[in-house]
Amino acid sequence: MHEAAEAAAAVTLKLFRTPLAVENKWQVGFDPVTEADKEAEVAVRQIIEARFPDHGIIGEEWAQKDAASPFTWIIDPIDGTRAFISGVPVWGTLIGLMHEGRALAGLMAQPFTGETFWSLPGKARYRRGGDVAPLGTSKVTELAHAKLTTTSPDLFRGADREVPWQAIAPRVLQVRYGLDCYGYCLMAMGQIDLVVEAGLKDVDIAPLIPIIENAGGIITTWDGGPAEAGGNCVAAATPELHAAALAVLQGR
Amino acid sequence: MHEAAEAAAAVTLKLFRTPLAVENKWQVGFDPVTEADKEAEVAVRQIIEARFPDHGIIGEEWAQKDAASPFTWIIDPIDGTRAFISGVPVWGTLIGLMHEGRALAGLMAQPFTGETFWSLPGKARYRRGGDVAPLGTSKVTELAHAKLTTTSPDLFRGADREVPWQAIAPRVLQVRYGLDCYGYCLMAMGQIDLVVEAGLKDVDIAPLIPIIENAGGIITTWDGGPAEAGGNCVAAATPELHAAALAVLQGR
Repeated sequence: MHEAAEAAAAVTLKLFRTPLAVENKWQVGFDPVTEADKEAEVAVRQIIEARFPDHGIIGEEWAQKDAASPFTWIIDPIDGTRAFISGVPVWGTLIGLMHEGRALAGLMAQPFTGETFWSLPGKARYRRGGDVAPLGTSKVTELAHAKLTTTSPDLFRGADREVPWQAIAPRVLQVRYGLDCYGYCLMAMGQIDLVVEAGLKDVDIAPLIPIIENAGGIITTWDGGPAEAGGNCVAAATPELHAAALAVLQGR
Repeated sequence: MHEAAEAAAAVTLKLFRTPLAVENKWQVGFDPVTEADKEAEVAVRQIIEARFPDHGIIGEEWAQKDAASPFTWIIDPIDGTRAFISGVPVWGTLIGLMHEGRALAGLMAQPFTGETFWSLPGKARYRRGGDVAPLGTSKVTELAHAKLTTTSPDLFRGADREVPWQAIAPRVLQVRYGLDCYGYCLMAMGQIDLVVEAGLKDVDIAPLIPIIENAGGIITTWDGGPAEAGGNCVAAATPELHAAALAVLQGR
């Protein structure tokens, strides 16, 4: 994971804060896909394919590689491409390993700040420069004391999403926007207590699940199921906070 | 300015991402004021008072120092305290110099990322590590091509603010939230094209004005007046984009 993240960083850092050819992936709306995104995924895939040729690979930018192996890598080369093209260093390269559909290990690297958050079974770690430290979530159990983040309130469009956001946002201590994967990692570090998002893809979230869980946190969909497939997700620092958030999101 | 910013950084970096005693400045709502905020302003004031004992000083945390001199320093020790207490490295130390009420020079330092954006009359500069580069805004002239940022859509509460935000947000290429002072600096760097905010204080914006203007940008209030006193402000990369934004904000 670290080797693959370094290969991605060599691509992304070279293109961060330079003019980019931004394509429109969708005809409607604006989903920036940059040269950096595509090249970085190639760099990550090359490392994985060389080391684990029999594993499957799911990536955001290129076709899925199916395999007989129960192990599948899951890659978002630049999670937070909108942050990336705005020059904001809160995007990250996500690399995860799934085993029979369950997230087993994961890494988030933010190469501009030089930070790496990663997890292997039973541990979650942070590294910046030469310093490595364990990650651990906060002890916050009540919504009224919680720092909440979501990438954008605009994620909560449509009847099934607007009500939950309008219900939960006023109950917390503060709301921050604009963090993408960085928000989950700051939760694993104990700086943020709660992340609520809607409409995630599997590549956006699966690599982060082991980091969250092995730091002491909990992540599920809004209906309490596993988050590996994405969708509407809620991550919390403690079981109590997660239960409180889930109750509000479910309208209980 | 650089010396004062370094003195502030010695305080802020020590306290960034550690548990903080967060006070409530207001009885209603949540306005975090941290130990770091107060101590960092003291550090900046000490440098200024030693070098320019006859100048006035306006700071966010401590009482105004009046002076007969036409020069007044204006300080926000941690602009973006909510980002600060959430562990997000987009807060900044702002130090500006006013001459008879007009912003003359200014600096924004983000010590975690090691970035400094500053301006003296006729120039605007960026430094990270040993590299110094001129700042320059983008050439974007149309709303439809503009990357817009604001700290939070929650700034736009109340009848006089909601309509302008709802009018402008759908017209731009993309909206990013959560950047505080960092958004204006990324605009000076050409990464963001437009910043629209409401309810700013003088200390939030005056130190940034020279950086924006000397990078080629324009900043005024929504009614087109000088932005030194804060309030509802709009900053744009080009005169054309500024005029287009102003027209929407004024309901024209």
